Amino acid sequence: MEIKLQQNILAANDKIAVDLAKIFKDKGIYVINLMASPGAGKTSFILHTIEALKNKLSVAVIEGDIASKVDAEKVREHGVSTIQINTGGACHLDANMIRGALNFLNLDETDLIIIENVGNLVCPVEFDLGETVKVVILSVPEGDDKPLKYPRIFADSQVLIVNKMDLLDYTDFNVDGLKRTVNNLNPGINIFEISCKSADGIDNWISWLKDKTDKFLKLK
Amino acid sequence: MEIKLQQNILAANDKIAVDLAKIFKDKGIYVINLMASPGAGKTSFILHTIEALKNKLSVAVIEGDIASKVDAEKVREHGVSTIQINTGGACHLDANMIRGALNFLNLDETDLIIIENVGNLVCPVEFDLGETVKVVILSVPEGDDKPLKYPRIFADSQVLIVNKMDLLDYTDFNVDGLKRTVNNLNPGINIFEISCKSADGIDNWISWLKDKTDKFLKLK
Repeated sequence: MEIKLQQNILAANDKIAVDLAKIFKDKGIYVINLMASPGAGKTSFILHTIEALKNKLSVAVIEGDIASKVDAEKVREHGVSTIQINTGGACHLDANMIRGALNFLNLDETDLIIIENVGNLVCPVEFDLGETVKVVILSVPEGDDKPLKYPRIFADSQVLIVNKMDLLDYTDFNVDGLKRTVNNLNPGINIFEISCKSADGIDNWISWLKDKTDKFLKLK
Repeated sequence: MEIKLQQNILAANDKIAVDLAKIFKDKGIYVINLMASPGAGKTSFILHTIEALKNKLSVAVIEGDIASKVDAEKVREHGVSTIQINTGGACHLDANMIRGALNFLNLDETDLIIIENVGNLVCPVEFDLGETVKVVILSVPEGDDKPLKYPRIFADSQVLIVNKMDLLDYTDFNVDGLKRTVNNLNPGINIFEISCKSADGIDNWISWLKDKTDKFLKLK
């Protein structure tokens, strides 16, 4: 019974997600669904991405949080449109929440939307948001075994960001081992090793993203 | 509708949790529900606790994972009874899963059960497992703002373990700031600063736990 209901919830979500994907495509908006554990560096990663692109693209951010608006305030200080969603306890964003948030954005003048999902390696990946790309961040202190324990988020994402590479020397994290595990789950995934603290590696991510968004802009 | 159903699920869970709490009390078993983000150090923390107590108490571990049994294998190598629960996608353990796991333990000869919940700062705290104590681990690289963003788990736990203190110098984590935030949410919480890597601070946690379990053993 519970399982059946869960399927109904997901089916209802997917229906809205299909509508959202159509809107994003029609408007030529590239949409990132950014997922990670709490504290993996999602907000810092968004701030780096905004700083690199805000003079080239019109960027908006949708912040998903259980409670509080500390992240939204940090992002807003960087001068981009920011919509805060408080899920009121829910452990993930769903497509209906995103549909509501779109009412507060001028979609005709938006090129890139970054959705910061709730910090959680489990539930967010089950709820499509109509996004163009799913990006998951794994930070070095979390350990290289996480894809074995939370496989779906690594299997379904198109991009893996390995953050906090500056802490590599203080841990037993094995980057090659991680890549082997992730490539077994998801051979086509794009992996970027970065440090939001030192900004090392951010440029590789930005040039990949710039290439993708350029293609989108041509469709406008 | 969805909210109502969620309430029904929680009510059904709580009913089983009350039964479990009675069993644990009748058998004089101290039960820890251990919760944290992925990669905060739950399994390492359990291994330290086992090593410190296994000659004094009969310890069993219930391992909750979405997939894989890497943690259960690590624990089993330390010579304690270990039951693996794979939640098959669910983002938390529930009381019914624990009830099932108890069939595989000799409760008359168990003094302490440590339940390693699924790595998640959101959902596990909503599901009581009949435990004696809720313990949450926050690791330094996750950042000191986590209690603002995921307040309930910090509000409802009796113990907060701050792990990976060995990484403090490489981050901007503010221990005093964290304590202020957490004490605002939960004035009675016991906070232990530890490093599972160097074992610093583990003795304080063990002496607190030993004091609690001694009182339980006297009831047997």
